[in-house]
Amino acid sequence: MIGRIDHIGIVCRDVDEAVEFYRATYGFELTHVEVIESQGVREAMLRVGATGDGAASYIQLLEPVRADSAVSAWLERHGPGVHHIAFGTDDVDAESERLKARGIRPIFDPPGTGSRGTKVTFLHPRDCLGVLTELVTLP
Amino acid sequence: MIGRIDHIGIVCRDVDEAVEFYRATYGFELTHVEVIESQGVREAMLRVGATGDGAASYIQLLEPVRADSAVSAWLERHGPGVHHIAFGTDDVDAESERLKARGIRPIFDPPGTGSRGTKVTFLHPRDCLGVLTELVTLP
Repeated sequence: MIGRIDHIGIVCRDVDEAVEFYRATYGFELTHVEVIESQGVREAMLRVGATGDGAASYIQLLEPVRADSAVSAWLERHGPGVHHIAFGTDDVDAESERLKARGIRPIFDPPGTGSRGTKVTFLHPRDCLGVLTELVTLP
Repeated sequence: MIGRIDHIGIVCRDVDEAVEFYRATYGFELTHVEVIESQGVREAMLRVGATGDGAASYIQLLEPVRADSAVSAWLERHGPGVHHIAFGTDDVDAESERLKARGIRPIFDPPGTGSRGTKVTFLHPRDCLGVLTELVTLP
């Protein structure tokens, strides 16, 4: 069961500048900052608003912290912009298995640890009409 | 006051195929289909889930219906993918004026009519760290 847009993942050149932009422009509250060493990114989460499933939607800002990270390569190719979208589910393991059976390839198989202690996987954009799509289960 | 992610706007080559993908893959309900002649697009809205401000978040699928539309040019340049993000507000006119005063250029000034009878504007991606951003007030 997928019940919310958990976040929109946006790649930027300077996460501090981007946090200040989203905070000052829209009034979103910064709720979390984390360096994810395995992915070579610094992440900031800003809360947009509550969702009907008892969670919330966020803007996720991502700045590469290593030149050899996937996000760094993406930034060079595309420039700053929307990198992926993420849906919230209460059971990412079950969703991932269900989608595999439909021929949609999960990039983390089985799902792995995301930021904030979440459990996540990403679905291959070639299987999702060009959209890199993440599934997230909160801790 | 901005209280939700109203939708994520995704450009596709075939909106019927994309509707079926989002419906079958994630279980989202198709709630609206409309041809927006002024923008040269066919739009489908699929509901993801309720939001805490009493509205909901959607996936918006966009297929160009004219070769000379802006979305058609975008599709040729980028291929299918995320085109814009949209935040919901109860007063797009006031938000637009507030953001203009901050130096962020609205593309529709004053805000105009969007699909579903909404009132909308878009903010210039160069003023929004590379992200084409829409503000939406429901009818």
